[in-house]
Amino acid sequence: MKDNTALILIDMINKMDFEGGEDLLENTKPIVDSIINLKRQAKESGLPVIYVNDNFGLWQESVENVIEVCRNERGREVVEQVLPDKDDFFIIKPKHSGFYSTQLDILLSHLGVKNLILTGIAGDICVLFTADDAYMREYNLWVPSDCTASETEKNNDNALRLMKRSMFANIQPTSETNIENAFQQTKQ
Amino acid sequence: MKDNTALILIDMINKMDFEGGEDLLENTKPIVDSIINLKRQAKESGLPVIYVNDNFGLWQESVENVIEVCRNERGREVVEQVLPDKDDFFIIKPKHSGFYSTQLDILLSHLGVKNLILTGIAGDICVLFTADDAYMREYNLWVPSDCTASETEKNNDNALRLMKRSMFANIQPTSETNIENAFQQTKQ
Amino acid sequence: MKDNTALILIDMINKMDFEGGEDLLENTKPIVDSIINLKRQAKESGLPVIYVNDNFGLWQESVENVIEVCRNERGREVVEQVLPDKDDFFIIKPKHSGFYSTQLDILLSHLGVKNLILTGIAGDICVLFTADDAYMREYNLWVPSDCTASETEKNNDNALRLMKRSMFANIQPTSETNIENAFQQTKQ
Amino acid sequence: MKDNTALILIDMINKMDFEGGEDLLENTKPIVDSIINLKRQAKESGLPVIYVNDNFGLWQESVENVIEVCRNERGREVVEQVLPDKDDFFIIKPKHSGFYSTQLDILLSHLGVKNLILTGIAGDICVLFTADDAYMREYNLWVPSDCTASETEKNNDNALRLMKRSMFANIQPTSETNIENAFQQTKQ
Repeated sequence: MKDNTALILIDMINKMDFEGGEDLLENTKPIVDSIINLKRQAKESGLPVIYVNDNFGLWQESVENVIEVCRNERGREVVEQVLPDKDDFFIIKPKHSGFYSTQLDILLSHLGVKNLILTGIAGDICVLFTADDAYMREYNLWVPSDCTASETEKNNDNALRLMKRSMFANIQPTSETNIENAFQQTKQ
Repeated sequence: MKDNTALILIDMINKMDFEGGEDLLENTKPIVDSIINLKRQAKESGLPVIYVNDNFGLWQESVENVIEVCRNERGREVVEQVLPDKDDFFIIKPKHSGFYSTQLDILLSHLGVKNLILTGIAGDICVLFTADDAYMREYNLWVPSDCTASETEKNNDNALRLMKRSMFANIQPTSETNIENAFQQTKQ
Repeated sequence: MKDNTALILIDMINKMDFEGGEDLLENTKPIVDSIINLKRQAKESGLPVIYVNDNFGLWQESVENVIEVCRNERGREVVEQVLPDKDDFFIIKPKHSGFYSTQLDILLSHLGVKNLILTGIAGDICVLFTADDAYMREYNLWVPSDCTASETEKNNDNALRLMKRSMFANIQPTSETNIENAFQQTKQ
Repeated sequence: MKDNTALILIDMINKMDFEGGEDLLENTKPIVDSIINLKRQAKESGLPVIYVNDNFGLWQESVENVIEVCRNERGREVVEQVLPDKDDFFIIKPKHSGFYSTQLDILLSHLGVKNLILTGIAGDICVLFTADDAYMREYNLWVPSDCTASETEKNNDNALRLMKRSMFANIQPTSETNIENAFQQTKQ
């Protein structure tokens, strides 16, 4: 089923100002096009697009200001390509997992979502731990391998294999499957 | 201790468009001045002021838009008196309790807060259930009786007595105690 | 629907050794028969029966020992009448709400339960706050008025009315409805 | 500080009856002695020892029965060596993370614990995801590399490195540090 699916973008609005941020930025650039394509397809199909994003310590700021700040840091080039649309959802996450102390689970329940397409960075930290929280809550997972990036390719591959092995996630790239078919291979 | 205290305003940015909203509005008007006074004192003392507020179904809207919408509904008169300042915190809560699926607990931990001053509406629903979630997480509570309102005075009184009895909350009005002293009477 | 319903017994295995315990015990005795009847009907219909119970500070003890300790305190007379059967579920709750830091939600999801019959004590504390946590998680509620008790009848009535008003709970006594019909009146 | 430290044993009471269980068993045998030593030291120092363990689908069974069942499966040899003592804590976890829908966080708060020694299996699944939930809750972590095992050594090493990198966990083996010193190197 397609209409119970949501596309999640994790930490793509990103200062990239931390240690290792340069490497992460280099590895993130090549996944931007795949994410933009997937987002376009999701929106054409009427699926919800949900940004789940760190607040970068800006607890008192509006989402608009968090985005503005990130636009003026090292992550600029990526940020400007993936800016949220008016009708996208935007959830601030204060820690690694997008489910920890956020309204993500309630929003997904409100939207009738059971299948999650997880994209974004870092594949071996915030994507991985969001994925496990999703798995424990019994969401089906597609984590397209061409839509996540980490500081090193090896770490990203390890995380993808771990999601496949321990969460039954589909990790096929967007070139090999699509929103219609990606969840037929997960353990429903 | 004063500097580990935060002031919480619950659902004061409110459409009041639901059944019973007119009664709640009438009972809310008289508490606005006490809340504004308390907020001024909190800010003079450098204490964090945190709005914890329903999204009124506006899942995709920014906080600014939620406020704007509420300004143009039945709650207008109250909303305009208690608008958040630039440096206030604003947390959207999707359900009754301010702790359920929100970042409130993490924000309070980040701010080093152990004592909560709970104000707002409705005293017998969102304030009450936020209070119990706070009590289960071992926060000390001051719920000033002149800073909460419900659809009926009797229901508000019952809720206040329940918070005193089952959560050891101080329910003295702001005329009888203050931020300095209110938490000396709670079970620390 | 009947087969997605579970019967919950809250804190019925109870030392009753706290302040107010004598009054609570007196008010609890008259509800025991209604609870036992409901439990028999639930089991005849193959519905899960779930005890959700305080650990009375016995963190290191087995459930068997917690029960044994409570059997030898003021609550004895009640405890012996409502002892769990071999095939009942038993969940320890460390705080007021049966959902807070317990596996109750996951167990209910595992069992496919959407409708909860809440019974037990105290009606205005642990039953009330468990009910709101259930409501926020979108369970339908039947809280039979003859199956909960509090320290005073007035407090119990206030809590029942609050559950009806703010959580759309059915609070009809078991003499006026039954497991088949009780959930037809809730907001599904 | 030593007295705010607890030793956690994850899924050591284990049927090992799943796919890959034979490999996991082979890799678990060599870590048993290190865990037993650590447990003896913890108990000599008066530190709490907490088993956090899957229920292997036995939702209605007592902890005693879960242990008994695991004793009669492939994991027997390991289970018998690490049986809990009378005064150990035993928490059932229904999913990967020891914090998800369990009372672990509340128990640790009740015990005043801030430092966790995480041991057990599988290092790249339940230990890893418990570790991240602990990190998000701001516990300091020691995950001794000689006290966790996974289906393959490579996967275990990857998980350990990830915990070091993303959670600032100390992953020194018990031969290189001890309970006194292990937490001086973590980001306090």
